[in-house]
Amino acid sequence: MRLRNKPWAEEFIGSHPEVIIPNPEEYIGNWQRIFGNDNPVHIEVGTGKGQFVTGMALANPEINYIGIELYTSVIVVALEKVIEANTPPNLRLLKVNGADLDKYFKKGDVSRVYLNFSDPWPKTRHAKRRLTHEGFLKLYESILIDNGEIHFKTDNRGLFEYSLVSMSEYGMLLKYVSLDLHVNMPKDNIMTEYEEKFSAKGQPIYRLESAFKTKK
Amino acid sequence: MRLRNKPWAEEFIGSHPEVIIPNPEEYIGNWQRIFGNDNPVHIEVGTGKGQFVTGMALANPEINYIGIELYTSVIVVALEKVIEANTPPNLRLLKVNGADLDKYFKKGDVSRVYLNFSDPWPKTRHAKRRLTHEGFLKLYESILIDNGEIHFKTDNRGLFEYSLVSMSEYGMLLKYVSLDLHVNMPKDNIMTEYEEKFSAKGQPIYRLESAFKTKK
Ligand SMILES: C[S@@+](CC[C@H](N)C(=O)[O-])C[C@H]1O[C@@H](n2cnc3c(N)ncnc32)[C@H](O)[C@@H]1O
Ligand SMILES: C[S@@+](CC[C@H](N)C(=O)[O-])C[C@H]1O[C@@H](n2cnc3c(N)ncnc32)[C@H](O)[C@@H]1O
Repeated sequence: MRLRNKPWAEEFIGSHPEVIIPNPEEYIGNWQRIFGNDNPVHIEVGTGKGQFVTGMALANPEINYIGIELYTSVIVVALEKVIEANTPPNLRLLKVNGADLDKYFKKGDVSRVYLNFSDPWPKTRHAKRRLTHEGFLKLYESILIDNGEIHFKTDNRGLFEYSLVSMSEYGMLLKYVSLDLHVNMPKDNIMTEYEEKFSAKGQPIYRLESAFKTKK
Repeated sequence: MRLRNKPWAEEFIGSHPEVIIPNPEEYIGNWQRIFGNDNPVHIEVGTGKGQFVTGMALANPEINYIGIELYTSVIVVALEKVIEANTPPNLRLLKVNGADLDKYFKKGDVSRVYLNFSDPWPKTRHAKRRLTHEGFLKLYESILIDNGEIHFKTDNRGLFEYSLVSMSEYGMLLKYVSLDLHVNMPKDNIMTEYEEKFSAKGQPIYRLESAFKTKK
């Protein structure tokens, strides 16, 4: 079942409010109401077809996951995946723009931001659109707990180089870096769709974990 | 002419005090006396056979270079290279241990530290020996000008990953990083002996530039 046709897709999304939250701005500062507990909330910005966030939710029931994806034609595929996985209670999706995160989350609502294979925007004049640009780092900091973390994977060398420098210039702490993740694949690594595609071609996968520092 | 035999090598070194300075501790705080000018001083720790530091000295006459190498059998090869290059006036060698830098330089004597293909010391119990371990970073900071820089190249993935995290934890600023230097080879890149060897095998060369931050 593939629901790429727009009207059908919108209807399918609308008929699953228990997965794709229709009015997320109402839960700002109050995500426990959605999940029925106060476990940490981890979000993924640019979830795509949802394999990562669904796998993480199944593997880590003590964490609440929210996958954020802008495009209808993509998020319906993630929705199907969530339903196939029997709709884990610790998983939701938002069909919103990652640039508007502060409409849905306030400071401390989120413990970790995942970025996986984000669009590289290789042209310098598009640097502001990269999800690790200073503007986005500021946005993540404004919704994260103190010392909240960004976990980032990509196959794109230019974007990874840029992100290392951008995060350092922002004053973030680099806690972990791998320049070829699949050489010593961590046991708990959950692959994304893009990760499967690019690692099958033999390209190295880059990964980092960084943290915001407490302001003095 | 290859002078690997120890007594011969020592004699050859001793007969070229205009290149390998016999009493470097006498110039602490006073390296202008050696170079006859107050141009910035850049040092390379672990110079090996000297191709990089000799090439840099010829390419950048307005910078003073000091190549530091511990082993007699290696530094004699660098000495031959310097003589073949007609002994550039802005280049010297020191046969000393990089762990003793503060015997020869005081705060502000050095503007930049180069590390090229430093020994990786892959075992965790040898981490202190890595030239980018916290202990060495502290040493470099103690001889560098404010905002002084480290420029580091290596083929060794593990050492590069370690160094990115070590420098970030130390509070340094990452200003530039390349995860495959030879893909867009900078015009002014001077190759080291190890760089020629490893890049010929098709291995990516990693490079970074980082800076110490001014303490408040
Ligand atoms: C290259 S794909 C990677 C998808 C998935 N993370 C993976 O690794 O397979 C990037 C995804 O981010 C989504 N995206 C890009 N910008 C976005 C934004 N501002 N807000 C939400 N999603 C965004 C795109 O629609 C696309 O699905
Ligand atoms: C792997 S080689 C690289 C040589 C050269 N930089 C290159 O890229 O071709 C490392 C060099 O660092 C030197 N070295 C290692 N530890 C040192 C120390 N503590 N002080 C000075 N030299 C050192 C070694 O003797 C060796 O010549």
